[in-house]
Amino acid sequence: MAKPLRIGMIGYGFMGRAHSNGYKRVSDFFDLEYTPVLQAVAARDPAKAKEFADRWGYGRVESDWQKLVAAPDIDAIDICTPNNLHAEIAIEAAKHGKAILCEKPLSMDTSEGERMVAAIEKAGVPNMVWYNYRRIPAVTFAKQIIDSGQMGRIFHYRANFLQDWTISADLPQGGAGLWRLDAKAAGSGVTGDLLAHCIDTAIWLNGSVTDVTAMTETFVKERQHQLTGQREPVTIDDACSFLCHFQNGSLGLFESTRYARGHKALYTFEINGENMSLKWDLHDLHRLQVFDYKDAGNMRGWKSIHVTDGDHPYMDKWWVPGLAIGYEHSFVHQVADFLEAYAKKQPAHPTFRDALETQRVCDAVLLSGKSHQWVNV
Amino acid sequence: MAKPLRIGMIGYGFMGRAHSNGYKRVSDFFDLEYTPVLQAVAARDPAKAKEFADRWGYGRVESDWQKLVAAPDIDAIDICTPNNLHAEIAIEAAKHGKAILCEKPLSMDTSEGERMVAAIEKAGVPNMVWYNYRRIPAVTFAKQIIDSGQMGRIFHYRANFLQDWTISADLPQGGAGLWRLDAKAAGSGVTGDLLAHCIDTAIWLNGSVTDVTAMTETFVKERQHQLTGQREPVTIDDACSFLCHFQNGSLGLFESTRYARGHKALYTFEINGENMSLKWDLHDLHRLQVFDYKDAGNMRGWKSIHVTDGDHPYMDKWWVPGLAIGYEHSFVHQVADFLEAYAKKQPAHPTFRDALETQRVCDAVLLSGKSHQWVNV
Amino acid sequence: MAKPLRIGMIGYGFMGRAHSNGYKRVSDFFDLEYTPVLQAVAARDPAKAKEFADRWGYGRVESDWQKLVAAPDIDAIDICTPNNLHAEIAIEAAKHGKAILCEKPLSMDTSEGERMVAAIEKAGVPNMVWYNYRRIPAVTFAKQIIDSGQMGRIFHYRANFLQDWTISADLPQGGAGLWRLDAKAAGSGVTGDLLAHCIDTAIWLNGSVTDVTAMTETFVKERQHQLTGQREPVTIDDACSFLCHFQNGSLGLFESTRYARGHKALYTFEINGENMSLKWDLHDLHRLQVFDYKDAGNMRGWKSIHVTDGDHPYMDKWWVPGLAIGYEHSFVHQVADFLEAYAKKQPAHPTFRDALETQRVCDAVLLSGKSHQWVNV
Amino acid sequence: MAKPLRIGMIGYGFMGRAHSNGYKRVSDFFDLEYTPVLQAVAARDPAKAKEFADRWGYGRVESDWQKLVAAPDIDAIDICTPNNLHAEIAIEAAKHGKAILCEKPLSMDTSEGERMVAAIEKAGVPNMVWYNYRRIPAVTFAKQIIDSGQMGRIFHYRANFLQDWTISADLPQGGAGLWRLDAKAAGSGVTGDLLAHCIDTAIWLNGSVTDVTAMTETFVKERQHQLTGQREPVTIDDACSFLCHFQNGSLGLFESTRYARGHKALYTFEINGENMSLKWDLHDLHRLQVFDYKDAGNMRGWKSIHVTDGDHPYMDKWWVPGLAIGYEHSFVHQVADFLEAYAKKQPAHPTFRDALETQRVCDAVLLSGKSHQWVNV
Repeated sequence: MAKPLRIGMIGYGFMGRAHSNGYKRVSDFFDLEYTPVLQAVAARDPAKAKEFADRWGYGRVESDWQKLVAAPDIDAIDICTPNNLHAEIAIEAAKHGKAILCEKPLSMDTSEGERMVAAIEKAGVPNMVWYNYRRIPAVTFAKQIIDSGQMGRIFHYRANFLQDWTISADLPQGGAGLWRLDAKAAGSGVTGDLLAHCIDTAIWLNGSVTDVTAMTETFVKERQHQLTGQREPVTIDDACSFLCHFQNGSLGLFESTRYARGHKALYTFEINGENMSLKWDLHDLHRLQVFDYKDAGNMRGWKSIHVTDGDHPYMDKWWVPGLAIGYEHSFVHQVADFLEAYAKKQPAHPTFRDALETQRVCDAVLLSGKSHQWVNV
Repeated sequence: MAKPLRIGMIGYGFMGRAHSNGYKRVSDFFDLEYTPVLQAVAARDPAKAKEFADRWGYGRVESDWQKLVAAPDIDAIDICTPNNLHAEIAIEAAKHGKAILCEKPLSMDTSEGERMVAAIEKAGVPNMVWYNYRRIPAVTFAKQIIDSGQMGRIFHYRANFLQDWTISADLPQGGAGLWRLDAKAAGSGVTGDLLAHCIDTAIWLNGSVTDVTAMTETFVKERQHQLTGQREPVTIDDACSFLCHFQNGSLGLFESTRYARGHKALYTFEINGENMSLKWDLHDLHRLQVFDYKDAGNMRGWKSIHVTDGDHPYMDKWWVPGLAIGYEHSFVHQVADFLEAYAKKQPAHPTFRDALETQRVCDAVLLSGKSHQWVNV
Repeated sequence: MAKPLRIGMIGYGFMGRAHSNGYKRVSDFFDLEYTPVLQAVAARDPAKAKEFADRWGYGRVESDWQKLVAAPDIDAIDICTPNNLHAEIAIEAAKHGKAILCEKPLSMDTSEGERMVAAIEKAGVPNMVWYNYRRIPAVTFAKQIIDSGQMGRIFHYRANFLQDWTISADLPQGGAGLWRLDAKAAGSGVTGDLLAHCIDTAIWLNGSVTDVTAMTETFVKERQHQLTGQREPVTIDDACSFLCHFQNGSLGLFESTRYARGHKALYTFEINGENMSLKWDLHDLHRLQVFDYKDAGNMRGWKSIHVTDGDHPYMDKWWVPGLAIGYEHSFVHQVADFLEAYAKKQPAHPTFRDALETQRVCDAVLLSGKSHQWVNV
Repeated sequence: MAKPLRIGMIGYGFMGRAHSNGYKRVSDFFDLEYTPVLQAVAARDPAKAKEFADRWGYGRVESDWQKLVAAPDIDAIDICTPNNLHAEIAIEAAKHGKAILCEKPLSMDTSEGERMVAAIEKAGVPNMVWYNYRRIPAVTFAKQIIDSGQMGRIFHYRANFLQDWTISADLPQGGAGLWRLDAKAAGSGVTGDLLAHCIDTAIWLNGSVTDVTAMTETFVKERQHQLTGQREPVTIDDACSFLCHFQNGSLGLFESTRYARGHKALYTFEINGENMSLKWDLHDLHRLQVFDYKDAGNMRGWKSIHVTDGDHPYMDKWWVPGLAIGYEHSFVHQVADFLEAYAKKQPAHPTFRDALETQRVCDAVLLSGKSHQWVNV
């Protein structure tokens, strides 16, 4: 009989749903020492929190997050709030000795992230940040291939995350569903929202970034603010791209925007090694493209691997070869990996400390976008 | 508060898992009058049934299906056994007035299917057959486009279902996990297993089939039988293809095999109309390919629609545009549609009667494969 | 200094252009003992023949083909007329000892084809039929792979040739540019025009066809005839599909139509062997898709080979890796291969006899389409 | 009867072949006032020049280019030498009043390019630089769509040119076939060779670039020099990427390398506008990908247009819909457009002046790569 890990959820938005689904499903497919229990939820709007709790089966609603992080029947706090609340909640939860699962990006900026890391490391609590794309089977498979060393020297890493949902100048900013356009709630625009995913994956697959030169842009300069009803300057970055060096000597190129018409959520990466190259694309997340120079000369080409076999990462838990899983399964996998690490009292990656490195790159990128200089990370 | 629909599950294999997952997840995403309750499971092997019940949260295990179909605390029976048990169970469950959800294909053959339809229609019980591919959003979207009438006269419909998992002559037949290779348990080979899916979708999208000419083949003539340990003749069809006419005057071409190296579960269809053509492929199930002749001449081409927007079928229930769902969601959708029809006391398609039409085509195909003649359906 | 092969061209249509281009370009890229010389052209319409000769640089225009095949300064006759003239011209040219290059399909039917083969074999003249798709580098590369034996036992071969240019019922039949819709000039519809290509490639790659069951359809029953101005019955097949067995035990499935909206000239084939599968598509003719079961289990997938390297067939003659050639180059290659065989006094494939086998399959298919019976080839 | 344009070719390498092929084929497909005549060729190695002249049918070989540019029977000089000879030849040819067609990039650097432009503009001679990719039909079609204004405000332009042929450290530099690795002959590495193509297309499609920040790298620091036999430092850029602003307010991102394993000659671009996006890829050069926001919401997607119809640019000259042309045809088109402009005494784009703008961007990129600063163009 699995032991319970009692979850206290803060927030009920898109990520609240995605995480809750992960908690509820994991034990149907994975055999683990711990099983998550949806103990309680806290959020600003009590009616919505109640509705959310009813739908997902949370045991109760707490009137504020301070009560939740202090509640003795909670083992782990899941932070799904806008970014500007991550630090306060995480530091308080750490004081109460709770395990902490924090939505990405870790923090509003590096210094805030450093305080968070200091707090959770001092408290010694289990911690993880929800960079869920690491757990898409094709991405994990890419990691396995890279770790095997067969790619040889790496020359290039490129990634982008392209969306198109903010092109209309009539879209307001701020408030429910739109806090990602408000720098006060989000810290930054596409850099923290989208590039942070690309950077987390890149560091995981290709190691540390040493320096960057970036270009940022805000295409729509003013938008009505949902909370004030006033037209206010937009202070987030609508688009951000940067060039960089990795510690392993390879070159990086990253781009993100919410103004690339035709792309809903196109996150792609490609890595070019001496002997092999890999490509992946979130829009077809169940495939990994592989080029292998070891193939006979006339037989070389890009191979599209349908990552749905039992010998692919995580896929022995699901259906049969050829039958794809989707986006949400990355959260199930992350829950499974967290629970396994939790049972073994080992770190679950990406930890807060791992995520802080991504934050440092984000800050360097944003600074370079302003200073028009190369910036060391 | 949703009303319970108490499920009695028979079987615990691949489909038992897929259906159970559908029942457990539906209420997290759909707002319905009824919610499924995993009441009890019955299966031949009690230890495995117990393990299955524990994993999925079924309330109890019944020692045999006869008890389950008679149990007063069961509202609906889900038949996930090998095909040779469908009829007996369904007829008995109908006698007890249970709603019945039967795994496809409906029956071992048409005459058995007719007895099933007679029994459930006499009993007047809600009924449905699990041709789940209708509920892949891209497939449902194709249905909407076709029903809009904008395609004009239809000329061609082609579909295939290609797999490669039985190529090795060392693979045994019969018994757990391999009953699909045993005609006594399965009725037929690829015809009932794979082509039945293609035919169900085809009838749904393009109407009735009138006559067929078919070719069947058994490539590996003998395999060891798992239950007897003896080498025995293989009597299923390893491959089956057929040509046909549809009632609407269009031409059909179907193929299925388990000997197409490189295809795990490649189910594709394409329909060509006067003004428009559509294509779909299970390996990239979240996309629908559309060609629209109404586009300006120099702008015509095949468009790949990423069927993940809120205005696509079922997709408002899930995540955000660009984030794909997978194979298993088709079962969640089918549960949702069944529950909605159940609440409204309307038929949930495909009904047993709908599935009987597919059975008739399958039988015509198998007969033509033997007689080497065109056969009317 | 290369020796001249003096060409006498009959016809000036689409194929007249494609062949002329082949003759004119071959010596710029291939080092051969012979070089084609565009000596003379004959065609029904003298003004058009003159214009054609001027454009392509033919030395003179002959008033009729009888003079051309008898002319002493002509080494080889190229027959680019509608199908109903192939036999008469070829037999007459053979009498005059000319080498003969005949556009496909060989003949109006098998018996006519037999007379042609008898005539040219009796005369002992070099001969070839323009099934040009054999010489697309990716197709030739497929042949090399198959001939290496590494595919193991073959289970399936499928091909189709889909077009959409005759959907409009207002399109007339017969006469210049439209003789392909007139059975009296073409012999058949898509069977001789499109399926013949599929069959030629199939026999080349996978061996002989033994028996077939076919379905043919004429969707538009009457069209205005360009020559008479009258509405006349359409007697060609608009669509034709068939199932067949190959001598090697594999199963075949073929389809062709001019009513598949969205497909301009989509010729595809796929072959599934025990160890390997191959796919090709004329719309992306520079690629070959390969699946190799010998790859490590988790690394298997369909590989898209960009057939543009120096170690791919014919490609050392052209540009550099990555730079594609197109449709017309297949004719250049066929000219090159013909000239090489001519110099060595060896057969250039497909010979008339090779093409007769394709004709036999076409006739069996058309007969089966009418008789609704399986027909032996 | 077309008037002759007598060509004097300098060089006999890859580009010498591609241009010669363009000259020889153009009049078979295009109806023009002028037709090119292959009058003479000059090159350093007389034996190779002779062989080249014989193959392509040049009337004679000149012993040096100085004689060729002064020859009275030459109308136009085509410069296909390594980059370090472009300026000297062009300036001298201009003095002799010849039309000049110069291989790209225009010059070794901007100041040299300025002298060239001054010379040819002073002489008033027709001039053009061989940025051939403008004349791929799909690329020209993109230009037509952009010029129609239907894309709305442009937000992003991204392009890359990826190759992998110099990864081996054993590949020597300098000399025949390898001068592109020698900065003394080439001026730069991938910037002038590959990025110059991307920049030319970008300026053509999206207007001027205002400022750049770049990153350059030389992965293999020393290679044996073919001419000296010594290991010498490599001074070209092996890889170069840059970010930029366009005058129209859109953001640019460019990358080029010869170390991207798996890419033979992958030149891609994408442009994102308010209402529409376009993508193209040299590896499938006959297709243009289009996303149109004006499509109904649920019908939006990327459309793959097979640019082979008669209403696509240049395609009425070739075959029938669905039949692709290849790389070399871009040169035929460029010859055709040059001849048409020549007849009308109009500029043929890109002119030397157009190409100088590309050179300025290249120089800014190389400077930024060294200075690690943003550089204004």
